[in-house]
Amino acid sequence: MTETSQAAALVLCSGGQDSTTCLRWAANRFATVYTIAFDYGQRHRIELEAAAHVAAEVGVIEHRVLPINALSALAGNSLTGKEPVTSEVNGRNGLPNTFVPGRNLLFLTLAAAWAYQLQITDLVTGVCQTDYSGYPDCREQTMDALALALRAGMESPFTIHTPLMHLTKAQSVTMAQEEGAMELLAHSHTCYNGSVPPCGVCPACVLRCKGFAAAGVADPLLVRLGLA
Amino acid sequence: MTETSQAAALVLCSGGQDSTTCLRWAANRFATVYTIAFDYGQRHRIELEAAAHVAAEVGVIEHRVLPINALSALAGNSLTGKEPVTSEVNGRNGLPNTFVPGRNLLFLTLAAAWAYQLQITDLVTGVCQTDYSGYPDCREQTMDALALALRAGMESPFTIHTPLMHLTKAQSVTMAQEEGAMELLAHSHTCYNGSVPPCGVCPACVLRCKGFAAAGVADPLLVRLGLA
Repeated sequence: MTETSQAAALVLCSGGQDSTTCLRWAANRFATVYTIAFDYGQRHRIELEAAAHVAAEVGVIEHRVLPINALSALAGNSLTGKEPVTSEVNGRNGLPNTFVPGRNLLFLTLAAAWAYQLQITDLVTGVCQTDYSGYPDCREQTMDALALALRAGMESPFTIHTPLMHLTKAQSVTMAQEEGAMELLAHSHTCYNGSVPPCGVCPACVLRCKGFAAAGVADPLLVRLGLA
Repeated sequence: MTETSQAAALVLCSGGQDSTTCLRWAANRFATVYTIAFDYGQRHRIELEAAAHVAAEVGVIEHRVLPINALSALAGNSLTGKEPVTSEVNGRNGLPNTFVPGRNLLFLTLAAAWAYQLQITDLVTGVCQTDYSGYPDCREQTMDALALALRAGMESPFTIHTPLMHLTKAQSVTMAQEEGAMELLAHSHTCYNGSVPPCGVCPACVLRCKGFAAAGVADPLLVRLGLA
């Protein structure tokens, strides 16, 4: 994970806490930044508004929202389906029922396809192995293998930057402070149920809340909403 | 590339010559076969009809057509755009202008996501390095790296079978004869311009024609159409 300065980067920006932190991280290091978000029929579609907001705030060259109807067509998970979002595992490989198989592989492949056209080779994603909630496509091993596949498949020297890969949620919060990302995080969206204010009980809310608590920092989103 | 017998396989079936040959190959080796095709706004959409036809002919358990609007949204190539299909390179890495960056990576990732739900680990694709026309996502190196990424990303022991990887087009035709695929090939579709009878001048038509000529075999599609 080398740090660059004169190049351009493409940040996968869902509008969530982690990708928003990574967007600030990238803007601090790259001369120009592009962002991409994915509209895959997620019930927390409000995160797309958060993504557009933080991208505009950072002044990216272009923010693109890519529609993916294929994931809905594959169905079978609670982020795109109608089952309630729970923190319980669905019994398959012990994965949470929010698991969309291969979602990050798909997102990064599509991001790389756009990056290829932009002649950008630096991709930035907020995936994190430490708090990976059982999602195997967030692990470093997966990202390393995928980087090889993308390089070979497009003959382009892609690097997948994963600034949060080995951080705890508390360390991510500390990093966000150091990078000056708190203002952006006030406009990020995390809740899987798409609620503003956040529901506070879905797995994503619980994880976010624990992270800020462990770092001893008030969540700027809750501060903005007058809740902390 | 091990050969299995009691398992199920998912074949990426575009309706073209290579994937149709692979479909027959898989049906000869696996107890049950599923097929998947992709509707990504290709101008040769007629291949989707060919895919459905050959899948039904083989008696697959399910043939699914997955819509991918993301590729059209990324645009910038002659298979989904409005530029004419030519055999000239577009100057970028010397690739033909029919190159959709990362297309096979995307297709295989989506296929794997469905295979995961079906609890299938054997994927079959007709990609071929020998006659790969400059598409880097058809090479063995790319498929090997992608298999690692899919295994790690979904924690599932995927194998990507590529029966045609090291065959010339002529050898593919010979293999199709040996596997009993000629009847199916009479209903396959190859022409990038979506023409029936085939235009005979697009890169895909030229390659198909050369292969049958080199194998000394009449193309069963042309025979069916009364043209050979």
